[in-house]
Amino acid sequence: MTQTNRQILLVEKPTGKLLPQNFKMAEAAIPEPKDGEVLVRVRYISLDAANRAWMHGATYRAAVEANTVMAGGGVAEVVSSNAPGFAPGDLVFGDTGWQEYAAVKAKTLVKVPHMEPMTHLLSVYGIAGLTAYFGLLEVGKPKSGDTVVVSAAAGSVGSIVGQIAKIKGCRVVGIAGGKDKCNWLVSELGFDAAVDYKSEPVFKALKAAAPNGIDVYFDNVGGDILEACLPQMNNGGRIACCGAVSQYDGAPSATGPRGVPGLIVVKRLIMQGFIVMDYYDQRQKAMADLQSWVKAGKLKVQEDIINGLENTPQALIGLLAGENRGKRMVKV
Amino acid sequence: MTQTNRQILLVEKPTGKLLPQNFKMAEAAIPEPKDGEVLVRVRYISLDAANRAWMHGATYRAAVEANTVMAGGGVAEVVSSNAPGFAPGDLVFGDTGWQEYAAVKAKTLVKVPHMEPMTHLLSVYGIAGLTAYFGLLEVGKPKSGDTVVVSAAAGSVGSIVGQIAKIKGCRVVGIAGGKDKCNWLVSELGFDAAVDYKSEPVFKALKAAAPNGIDVYFDNVGGDILEACLPQMNNGGRIACCGAVSQYDGAPSATGPRGVPGLIVVKRLIMQGFIVMDYYDQRQKAMADLQSWVKAGKLKVQEDIINGLENTPQALIGLLAGENRGKRMVKV
Repeated sequence: MTQTNRQILLVEKPTGKLLPQNFKMAEAAIPEPKDGEVLVRVRYISLDAANRAWMHGATYRAAVEANTVMAGGGVAEVVSSNAPGFAPGDLVFGDTGWQEYAAVKAKTLVKVPHMEPMTHLLSVYGIAGLTAYFGLLEVGKPKSGDTVVVSAAAGSVGSIVGQIAKIKGCRVVGIAGGKDKCNWLVSELGFDAAVDYKSEPVFKALKAAAPNGIDVYFDNVGGDILEACLPQMNNGGRIACCGAVSQYDGAPSATGPRGVPGLIVVKRLIMQGFIVMDYYDQRQKAMADLQSWVKAGKLKVQEDIINGLENTPQALIGLLAGENRGKRMVKV
Repeated sequence: MTQTNRQILLVEKPTGKLLPQNFKMAEAAIPEPKDGEVLVRVRYISLDAANRAWMHGATYRAAVEANTVMAGGGVAEVVSSNAPGFAPGDLVFGDTGWQEYAAVKAKTLVKVPHMEPMTHLLSVYGIAGLTAYFGLLEVGKPKSGDTVVVSAAAGSVGSIVGQIAKIKGCRVVGIAGGKDKCNWLVSELGFDAAVDYKSEPVFKALKAAAPNGIDVYFDNVGGDILEACLPQMNNGGRIACCGAVSQYDGAPSATGPRGVPGLIVVKRLIMQGFIVMDYYDQRQKAMADLQSWVKAGKLKVQEDIINGLENTPQALIGLLAGENRGKRMVKV
């Protein structure tokens, strides 16, 4: 066990696109857990578009500050505990930050079971899988036969949303960047169609892929793609607002999508934001469903694992550029 | 009884602001009701911001066309009937258009009771009152103690929304144009506060008037005022999208409100459009509630009645400019 704790600091908040120089490596002493804290060794760091949004502030958590360890969720192992209920060897999920060791308040940690592969705790059985599950089923509320469209469809959440929608008997159209991803969605994950926003005009391609209109749009991106979906929503359609990644990596947009609120009125749409934590009381049922689908081979788990703490900044920058397929994480 | 039917035609669809020259008076023969039709004499024509939206098309009804009688709802008396269930002397509500007589398909007409004053059939017991009732209670779903904000608050729908919200124990803030309207909302209708969007910066004035944030925003206007409300919504807040009058009288806006979908996600908002017809199965309960509140003096009915069919175009132009207080209609 090394005696130092390697960390990655956010040295300045980006104003435009996130850059490697916004971060730096640092070393610190391994912290002592205070009363009510647990010392953990971080095994995998979760990379999420939301990490970038936290830098703007005004999200569901406090803004990340310059010159501190970059915030981020991770799966970690308890090294020593100064809090009841946690013992060395326990596995936990929490906001460990981008570092090797962290002293974390026990009440912010969630105990998770040991499993093989451990990475599934961050993908299908982690926030990504639960976000897809609750966002689609509790917010989007698709019925069998509905047309479901999902953006960032090859990402950690989108790839699971589309597969759950297929399990529920829907026609599923994914929107993703690049032919490879689009082919993968259709041939590997069973989507009915995919729209490549990098090479096709989205509005027109969607019209062809969803000729009966859209009943449920699971929105991970906001911006132009939300604007392209709005006029194609069917009356009474539902838009599950999960994220707005098109808006995160730069200055906040000065405008919103055309058609709000006009189309929301005339089409009687429901547009609803959600945060996965709001549904944690139904977590057990969600886990049971996800596990049964994975076991039955109906839900394929795609992970994108990058080695080495030092590569975390580049891993996030790449994720914001749409490099990843499935759940991206860093093995520390 | 005159032998001619005076009518107002829409001679061209406006591209910018609606103007008197977009209309002209005409005369036609009184029509004969065909099989399944009813000949009615129009008594009162309802003026609504939606009339202007119909000229754009892409609403919940067919676009109004140039060189036809301008569409519009009205209360009318049956003159002769060629359809079962309707007899001379019956009172009906339907899309009679801007004219003295109309032959209307019976299945599009709703029979309404004779009452004094008859104008209440277009205000509190008409679409305005029902829109306020269902939009607030079924879409906005306010709880006692909630802060409810309503825009176009001195209008036909807004003035009723605010009063129902008070009846339900909410803190009510109205947004309206002009000091007179704002004073009237507070002193006559019992609103807790009012924001004059013509003389105050809306974001700041709202912050002062709704210091605990907004739980329910009943949106009649869209645009900048929706944008000002979004960041002040409380987590889990609900936006009832009733109309977007700020967007109707001119070319459709090329952008939407900033904060969509970002703030919808992080605040877990529900933004929901509705059309009053979707709730007609619950109409009896709504009518009973509205009548009991009017009788008890808890719900004041404000009407703005203009005389003469020939003044209908100017009445609509004035309504779009925010001239009216309460329900505007034309006595034919």
